[in-house]
Amino acid sequence: MTKTLAVNAGSSSMKWQMYEMPEEKVLAKGLIERIGLKDSIVTVKFGEEKEERVFDIPNHTEAVEVLLEDLKRLKIVEEFTEITGVGHRVVAGGEIFQKSTVVTPEVLQQVKDLSALAPLHNPANAAGIEAFLNLLPDATSVVVFDTAFHTTMPEKAFRYPLPKKYYTDYAVRKYGAHGTSHMYVSQEAAKLLGKPIEETKIITAHIGNGASITAVKGGESVDTSMGFTPLAGVMMGTRTGEMDPSVFPYLIENDSELKDAQDVVDMMNKESGLYGVSGISSDMRDIIAAKDTDADAKLAFEMYVDRIQKFIGQYLAVLNGADALVFTAGIGENSVPVREAILSGLTWFGIEVDPEKNVFGVEGEISKPSSRLKVFVIPTDEELVIARDVEALKK
Amino acid sequence: MTKTLAVNAGSSSMKWQMYEMPEEKVLAKGLIERIGLKDSIVTVKFGEEKEERVFDIPNHTEAVEVLLEDLKRLKIVEEFTEITGVGHRVVAGGEIFQKSTVVTPEVLQQVKDLSALAPLHNPANAAGIEAFLNLLPDATSVVVFDTAFHTTMPEKAFRYPLPKKYYTDYAVRKYGAHGTSHMYVSQEAAKLLGKPIEETKIITAHIGNGASITAVKGGESVDTSMGFTPLAGVMMGTRTGEMDPSVFPYLIENDSELKDAQDVVDMMNKESGLYGVSGISSDMRDIIAAKDTDADAKLAFEMYVDRIQKFIGQYLAVLNGADALVFTAGIGENSVPVREAILSGLTWFGIEVDPEKNVFGVEGEISKPSSRLKVFVIPTDEELVIARDVEALKK
Repeated sequence: MTKTLAVNAGSSSMKWQMYEMPEEKVLAKGLIERIGLKDSIVTVKFGEEKEERVFDIPNHTEAVEVLLEDLKRLKIVEEFTEITGVGHRVVAGGEIFQKSTVVTPEVLQQVKDLSALAPLHNPANAAGIEAFLNLLPDATSVVVFDTAFHTTMPEKAFRYPLPKKYYTDYAVRKYGAHGTSHMYVSQEAAKLLGKPIEETKIITAHIGNGASITAVKGGESVDTSMGFTPLAGVMMGTRTGEMDPSVFPYLIENDSELKDAQDVVDMMNKESGLYGVSGISSDMRDIIAAKDTDADAKLAFEMYVDRIQKFIGQYLAVLNGADALVFTAGIGENSVPVREAILSGLTWFGIEVDPEKNVFGVEGEISKPSSRLKVFVIPTDEELVIARDVEALKK
Repeated sequence: MTKTLAVNAGSSSMKWQMYEMPEEKVLAKGLIERIGLKDSIVTVKFGEEKEERVFDIPNHTEAVEVLLEDLKRLKIVEEFTEITGVGHRVVAGGEIFQKSTVVTPEVLQQVKDLSALAPLHNPANAAGIEAFLNLLPDATSVVVFDTAFHTTMPEKAFRYPLPKKYYTDYAVRKYGAHGTSHMYVSQEAAKLLGKPIEETKIITAHIGNGASITAVKGGESVDTSMGFTPLAGVMMGTRTGEMDPSVFPYLIENDSELKDAQDVVDMMNKESGLYGVSGISSDMRDIIAAKDTDADAKLAFEMYVDRIQKFIGQYLAVLNGADALVFTAGIGENSVPVREAILSGLTWFGIEVDPEKNVFGVEGEISKPSSRLKVFVIPTDEELVIARDVEALKK
């Protein structure tokens, strides 16, 4: 019995979960927000308890110190040496990292060097890794990449129709995201199908505030909707997804508030999607609450459903059919109206939903036994994948 | 019996076709190239004859004068008054023009005002219209818009997931293109299906040097792959199609040859697609000839097929199934290997190709009688649509 920490560090936050391994039992979890700002918020949950404190935490190193002190103070661990592994989610692994990897000085440097592909995320990930290396020098540190699961994509899927030099000299290609989630739910779906994963074709729809859809063949990603960055693919809470590129110069020329391409991308990342169309909210629950009385909210809902249906259709083409479609993440797991709207337009593909199963709180199959394509709701668990990868790589 | 001219004016070219109407008989056709450059090329075909001459034509007005003189000199017409109608293809009709329209001074001004949406095309179209108005003042002039067929799209399809103001204040939305072609081949497909078009669901793949795919329901466009401009959608000869927008600032920052968003769009329009990936050619025939010995050509072919399969899949989702899939335009009508590669990956949808029918020069059905989705090859005829619209609107 050993303890493993799964860590997800953002630019100003740090999410963590502590496991007893190999039992995969969650001992505690927590979140530190507003790192580097006034009034950082430290939340810890363990058993039925929940503790929240507010004080200033200037950087990721101190955040890790606070986290470790809390683990001792709350008697989640007696000694730090009980923590034998720490797994870190890293957003961009580029083409270098095809699987989870034990951290060495060279690996840490590579994570930093990949910051061009994830300028907001990789530096924060690296800061988290360094803090733990200093404070828990004897634990095995492992990096788990959001992109690793997608490194199996064939070149026809990951290349853009740009001049070749932008791939060879500038690394511009599709990398995808949410890899641990797509991997986890496709493996769970194969179990529900009762087939070896090698024999399955599965479409996984990770639909949360960020959203991506993946075509998984034989357990491997063969295409995914996010691209060079997480802006691509389906419409999201505040992101556009795929666009006609020609709007860039047009908007810069015509909207004096958009001075350059970076301004346009920022607008497409932060002010678009459900929020931009509805003018109300980036949260699907607010959109659904408003859509019967507000035309813009209704349109935002319809566009969101339309874009997801289109990716399901295109991945049915990519896979030449599938055994199952999986919904996961915040909206995928919890929004019955979104699932209902998506699936009711796809009956030609042989999807038959059981309305008695497609209800709030469901887990598992929501399609009828006769459905040509099985439809599953599977709660994702990215932290568990991280803990498992650490366990597999422990010294 | 009257004569009608169908005119397609580009920035430096003018294609035309002369019909006897309502018999729809082609009397002659021609092409004037390099207008405004040294050594303009004037080609006329009539019956079995073909004439080609080279001399300088400085502008569209003189090009029209040359064309009309040739018609008389070659005895295609005796008097210009025989030409009772002239139809002009116009690329961008915006949201104003939902169908073909008789030219008035106001209409001409609107065509010019829409140049922001087609900066290379609409000014040339307008110049052609003005030249004919001056030289054939008694003929009925009609504008036929590439976008008109797509004005039936629902808002969820034509809106982008951008802040609403970019639609309401800046007219940024999906307009589509190749409308006359998609309309014509979907009508022909309905005839082949032996059903009233109102009861059909058809996917039309207009695949030439430019390419767009349309979902047609009950004879109306409900979605199409080209967008705000003809850069969007599938990969083309030199165009990217859809992209992750975030590559814009990255390329501008990293490639010193790309100074701003306009440079990036120009590269995506002119140096990408089949040409950019293969480094060989924008012409599919060259790609096919090279693909067995050149890895980049093979990749370009695979990507091209992949992107078209994805749009067929997504429009099967949009339509919730279809009766027929139509191939048209240069590649769609003539490239057996492209059709074969696309269709062989879509068998799960119930597509069964008859390899004895999918041969060079075929017209009509290429699927087996048992195919759930009929597959047709239908040569497009945009000029005939123009001539018919003129006939319908003649004084």
